[in-house]
Amino acid sequence: MIDREALSLRYARVRARTDALAAPLSPEDAMVQSMPDASPAKWHLAHTTWFFEEFVLAPHEPGHRWPDERWRVLFNSYYEAVGPRHARPARGLLSRPPLDEVRAWRSRVDARVLELLPSLGGAALEAVSLGTHHEEQHQELLLTDVQHALSGSELRPAYTDRPLAASPAGSAAPLAWTSFDEAVVDLGHAGDGFAFDNETPRHRALVGPFRLASRLVTNGEYRAFVDDGGYDRAELWLADGWAAAKSGAWRGPLYWDDAGEHAFGMRGMQPLDPALPVAHVSHYEADAFARWAGARLPTEPEWERAAQGRAVEGNFVDSGRLATSPARGEGMAQLFGDVWEWTGSAYLPYPRFRPLEGALGEYNGKFMSGQMVLRGGSCFSPREHLRASYRNFFPPHARWQVSGVRLARDA
Amino acid sequence: MIDREALSLRYARVRARTDALAAPLSPEDAMVQSMPDASPAKWHLAHTTWFFEEFVLAPHEPGHRWPDERWRVLFNSYYEAVGPRHARPARGLLSRPPLDEVRAWRSRVDARVLELLPSLGGAALEAVSLGTHHEEQHQELLLTDVQHALSGSELRPAYTDRPLAASPAGSAAPLAWTSFDEAVVDLGHAGDGFAFDNETPRHRALVGPFRLASRLVTNGEYRAFVDDGGYDRAELWLADGWAAAKSGAWRGPLYWDDAGEHAFGMRGMQPLDPALPVAHVSHYEADAFARWAGARLPTEPEWERAAQGRAVEGNFVDSGRLATSPARGEGMAQLFGDVWEWTGSAYLPYPRFRPLEGALGEYNGKFMSGQMVLRGGSCFSPREHLRASYRNFFPPHARWQVSGVRLARDA
Amino acid sequence: MIDREALSLRYARVRARTDALAAPLSPEDAMVQSMPDASPAKWHLAHTTWFFEEFVLAPHEPGHRWPDERWRVLFNSYYEAVGPRHARPARGLLSRPPLDEVRAWRSRVDARVLELLPSLGGAALEAVSLGTHHEEQHQELLLTDVQHALSGSELRPAYTDRPLAASPAGSAAPLAWTSFDEAVVDLGHAGDGFAFDNETPRHRALVGPFRLASRLVTNGEYRAFVDDGGYDRAELWLADGWAAAKSGAWRGPLYWDDAGEHAFGMRGMQPLDPALPVAHVSHYEADAFARWAGARLPTEPEWERAAQGRAVEGNFVDSGRLATSPARGEGMAQLFGDVWEWTGSAYLPYPRFRPLEGALGEYNGKFMSGQMVLRGGSCFSPREHLRASYRNFFPPHARWQVSGVRLARDA
Amino acid sequence: MIDREALSLRYARVRARTDALAAPLSPEDAMVQSMPDASPAKWHLAHTTWFFEEFVLAPHEPGHRWPDERWRVLFNSYYEAVGPRHARPARGLLSRPPLDEVRAWRSRVDARVLELLPSLGGAALEAVSLGTHHEEQHQELLLTDVQHALSGSELRPAYTDRPLAASPAGSAAPLAWTSFDEAVVDLGHAGDGFAFDNETPRHRALVGPFRLASRLVTNGEYRAFVDDGGYDRAELWLADGWAAAKSGAWRGPLYWDDAGEHAFGMRGMQPLDPALPVAHVSHYEADAFARWAGARLPTEPEWERAAQGRAVEGNFVDSGRLATSPARGEGMAQLFGDVWEWTGSAYLPYPRFRPLEGALGEYNGKFMSGQMVLRGGSCFSPREHLRASYRNFFPPHARWQVSGVRLARDA
Repeated sequence: MIDREALSLRYARVRARTDALAAPLSPEDAMVQSMPDASPAKWHLAHTTWFFEEFVLAPHEPGHRWPDERWRVLFNSYYEAVGPRHARPARGLLSRPPLDEVRAWRSRVDARVLELLPSLGGAALEAVSLGTHHEEQHQELLLTDVQHALSGSELRPAYTDRPLAASPAGSAAPLAWTSFDEAVVDLGHAGDGFAFDNETPRHRALVGPFRLASRLVTNGEYRAFVDDGGYDRAELWLADGWAAAKSGAWRGPLYWDDAGEHAFGMRGMQPLDPALPVAHVSHYEADAFARWAGARLPTEPEWERAAQGRAVEGNFVDSGRLATSPARGEGMAQLFGDVWEWTGSAYLPYPRFRPLEGALGEYNGKFMSGQMVLRGGSCFSPREHLRASYRNFFPPHARWQVSGVRLARDA
Repeated sequence: MIDREALSLRYARVRARTDALAAPLSPEDAMVQSMPDASPAKWHLAHTTWFFEEFVLAPHEPGHRWPDERWRVLFNSYYEAVGPRHARPARGLLSRPPLDEVRAWRSRVDARVLELLPSLGGAALEAVSLGTHHEEQHQELLLTDVQHALSGSELRPAYTDRPLAASPAGSAAPLAWTSFDEAVVDLGHAGDGFAFDNETPRHRALVGPFRLASRLVTNGEYRAFVDDGGYDRAELWLADGWAAAKSGAWRGPLYWDDAGEHAFGMRGMQPLDPALPVAHVSHYEADAFARWAGARLPTEPEWERAAQGRAVEGNFVDSGRLATSPARGEGMAQLFGDVWEWTGSAYLPYPRFRPLEGALGEYNGKFMSGQMVLRGGSCFSPREHLRASYRNFFPPHARWQVSGVRLARDA
Repeated sequence: MIDREALSLRYARVRARTDALAAPLSPEDAMVQSMPDASPAKWHLAHTTWFFEEFVLAPHEPGHRWPDERWRVLFNSYYEAVGPRHARPARGLLSRPPLDEVRAWRSRVDARVLELLPSLGGAALEAVSLGTHHEEQHQELLLTDVQHALSGSELRPAYTDRPLAASPAGSAAPLAWTSFDEAVVDLGHAGDGFAFDNETPRHRALVGPFRLASRLVTNGEYRAFVDDGGYDRAELWLADGWAAAKSGAWRGPLYWDDAGEHAFGMRGMQPLDPALPVAHVSHYEADAFARWAGARLPTEPEWERAAQGRAVEGNFVDSGRLATSPARGEGMAQLFGDVWEWTGSAYLPYPRFRPLEGALGEYNGKFMSGQMVLRGGSCFSPREHLRASYRNFFPPHARWQVSGVRLARDA
Repeated sequence: MIDREALSLRYARVRARTDALAAPLSPEDAMVQSMPDASPAKWHLAHTTWFFEEFVLAPHEPGHRWPDERWRVLFNSYYEAVGPRHARPARGLLSRPPLDEVRAWRSRVDARVLELLPSLGGAALEAVSLGTHHEEQHQELLLTDVQHALSGSELRPAYTDRPLAASPAGSAAPLAWTSFDEAVVDLGHAGDGFAFDNETPRHRALVGPFRLASRLVTNGEYRAFVDDGGYDRAELWLADGWAAAKSGAWRGPLYWDDAGEHAFGMRGMQPLDPALPVAHVSHYEADAFARWAGARLPTEPEWERAAQGRAVEGNFVDSGRLATSPARGEGMAQLFGDVWEWTGSAYLPYPRFRPLEGALGEYNGKFMSGQMVLRGGSCFSPREHLRASYRNFFPPHARWQVSGVRLARDA
């Protein structure tokens, strides 16, 4: 049973966070679509608002009217059941409505949702709740898409003129290995809290013995892989990965310069800190690195087993850094936050998985093909968005997310 | 010998016209790049300013400094001799500098050019003059690119909220044919006025006898071609044109709706007026239409022979309509303005053509391959930009320019 | 410990089968490469011979010499560790050596391998053994590639002029469901017989309760899906599958005609028999069909659990039909043979998987990305090639293999 | 009025020449389609036969029957008016009919055409005559396509095992320039002999004064261009040419090796002879070379004016060399034969051009877009196929024809 008051607070908090993350962006910044996989920031602001208008207000608000019926087309992402959609690769063409009008729309929708919320029934409250988690996903996408957009200019500008919180300096904690015995474990979401349908149902799985690295792979370690000819040794790579690396002329992670001495981030070009976790690598690169290191990527069940019961603590968007930070301490570090951790598991439905009813059934299920699972969250993720059962997923060639590597080994 | 005072006035007038044409655009509108062939309006504003900074101020202004050296890269269009260039298809990524900063840059450059102009020598004055004609070309491109950008949204918005001057109503003048005898004529630019290098040198050519239509082909006439199965009859088309029409699923001019009843323009979607000249057709379509009509396109020499000695009068951007108007009167009509007229001539150098010296030699000559010549100017062209010897050119598949058809026939 | 005599017999038998399957092909037939994923039959004949020359004769034959050193390049498929390779999509360019010369090469290699075999040590015997299983894979590929090649001509010719063995007529057995309880099972290869590295190591997995259909989905059942708008209902499809179906204009299985009344096979165009298993569907189509049918695809562990301990019986290439046959009887039917069965499992390494040493380590491991597993074998597979632990794999869009559907359901 | 006896002799001679040129090819060689622009040799043999079957026998032979109606589809090249066509890029899939059957078809058609010819009327005789000239075009294409096909294998095989006639050794004649005054000249075909429609009608043109080089550009001269950084200097190139050279990684003519020391030809890889004409360059390269050399390409009218009245003498396919030869003597050399000479003229219709009636009207006219004219013929052309008014044409990027450079200069 959803607590209406808590949901109202959460709604307001999440929506305000989106506005804050987009605040540094000019109307021009918010227009850029740098590739078909990315969306303009303005579109993220509008689409997340469309979500509440489409799935909460339209069905539940008395006398509901759209600001413009055509916005249903412009800001529908991929819901075939809702109707036609503006072509995804052409989102950058949408100069109208302007950013100010989208912001005003956000405000109006917020007022209406908050006014309506106390009277909503269960299904509607579920939709509001889902909308807030949906919006948190777009918060991260907004940031990764903006970073990618800004990287496309020779100016390599910073995301904001205001100073961002500094990451701690110093070296990374030494790498240690934690051993796990074979066990039948319960995986997937448990309890009353929110979870996406793809985290359900809770199910039993046999997880063999394995060892898990105590922290993320660092820039320094990845630099050693590069310097050892990592990008020139076919034997380290999956065949598709090798083809992607060759055709894309990859010589290092996405945002590294040719010398491997600077990297582009939300502060613009910055010296590469060897102590920080490597970020913006594809699954292919993560896999090749692991093979080079005599290790492998953890599977989803292994990762989840290690994360179960741990507090969601780490370096999230909440820190205001918008950058990674070095591993500290002796135990298992960085399981949450800093960078998403590529697993060796394909994104597939859990046993007896059932998607949501109606159009929202398209939320996750139809994407369970051709993608790999990432776990743990990043420095661009809101802390309250994450949990041990959370499944993120991207195609194995994707590099513009804050994606990195944690190693595993057979026991 | 260039008159400095006249040039100053012209400089100010041309630059102000650009600003006026861009005035209705929001920062968002000015960002859109709808295809690699088109550029964002902001980029046009910046590039035309870069032209004066690069070719006038940098070499001639004492103590010249660039606002940002990297802008040389961002706003260089295609001058290999100047240095590296931001990738053309990625101009839509340039959110920085913002529109306001580009506008401020334009103002500063204007003040400096106008201050410097009285002391400039001949070559520098030539560069200023060239820059103004260059800017007039970009005025038209800015408009055609904005139209294309706005057409990419389901909102089909108008270019401006202000009312545009109305086009005259009424039917088109009847079509008549004017005959020309065989003659050796002098073609290309003559006299002291400005001309692009591609209009030179003046040279003799033998032009056989021909007949030329007294006005442009109308929407109504083109609609008859469509209704007669024009897009389904291979025998009417060049092989490349047929392939382009099939692969692009062309069923009519670029901006016509499926029913052929409305067309998109600077006023948004408007009813198609059968009396107005057909616009936004490719060379392939113009050629197929002409074959269907038992006629052909005029050649460059034919067109120029017919246009020589005539006043540059017609429907230009100066009318404030930003739309075509119907042919009026009994004589040869619409030779200038309304729509660019596809010729049957490939864009090639005139005999003894010599490009300009230095980087500006890349202005025209290197594009003399794979394109067809258009003549006469359009309702988006400034009147003072046009003349009988003027050669416009686009690839035969291009449709986003204001391009139409005038028929010719063998005598 | 490999039995040399048995291996000699197997070697001779397998090689002869390849020759027999290729016997109906003219030099022209054997040249065709219909798409980058397919290879000419002559190339299959040469590559399988190269395998023994490269991995058996070259390292073990005293005074070994290549017929032409450049053939190492021409007929190396994908072994980076062996050296450069002729480009895969350009295999159809290799008119030299001609088919006769390739056949002669096969004979010479066969004589030399059989002569050498009694003196070979363990590793070399392993390579010979692997080569025979490798060749059996190419026997099936040769057939599927020839079928695809022949389908590309308006003549739609049969593979051979000789009559093929007839498939039994009559309707398919009724569909029943077999239930399986949750169990921890041992999966992967067991025992002394040959297995590919990707079937190892034997490992424990927890398999939840499920039900499995007693036979394959038929053409008639698939036709009902098509007639019910299966290819027009986005809600039934994975997002990637929907995109593939739309971009490929799929309206039915690969070789069906538009009316769904005939299908192309090794006999040319033949009436579609509703009792036969549907074949030549992609994973996307298999998945959409299953969803439409209120079922799902089985997972690898589910399929293997059902198949363990069963005799490898069914309709294989050995029947000489080169076509599917209807399910018969009451029990679990068609688990082996007829069509490969798409599973819902991505092709990934088993826990503690280790690829073979050296260049042969590229055999399977590097392809464990972006593909789905198929199980059971087809009417193009040699019976002796198959076993319950056998893992076949293709990208989810692939349709030219003899791939079909068996349904599963949650218990 | 066509002389039936002469045409019979010519028919037999041309058809026999095709057979002789194809004689060295195995069934495998005759299957290869190396790119969409090229066709398999077997297809050339069949298509030229189809031409007579379609345009002579079918309309004129009493009780005509096709060997297989579907061959009308398989071997129709591009005649929309005839009906559907097998897809051009898929000609390499046509293993059936086999080469032997195509050869047998050729023989049967030859017998029937020769039997029918004495009774044919004017239009049919015109079709036979056109068919022989059509076949001569395909003789050259057969050779260029075979060369391209063989170049795609690491074996770099020779076209034939028999020795080809040797090219004379020795250095090229010195380069001289011949001057021409301005004149009004008659261009296009004159007289009673055969000409393609694109050479008509004869028409007057004013040709300005110019100078023409006395021989072709040599490998040695082109090598100097390469060594002078010709492929790295954008200022020498047309913009489209520069883009093609960069995207295609061009570093020299098509068949040169990286060192510029060997080139692939009908004898396989051979040392590059600096005295021989450079061949297998695109229009873009010819144009860039000319600019580097301080010259330009001749226009069509210039070339034709220089060639008018000269005997068609030179190095043709008749020499049996299938290779170029050095320029000899003092006067204007190599105007005919050796290599096709790129002109600076786009392929466009002559004034008052009318294509042939009916389906044959598609022969030339519909290709008058996007191509450049070449003149003079090559060492792959039959002598009797050429004349001063002959217009060959290819896209400016095409390199697989035997295309080279003759320089011109302004007077």
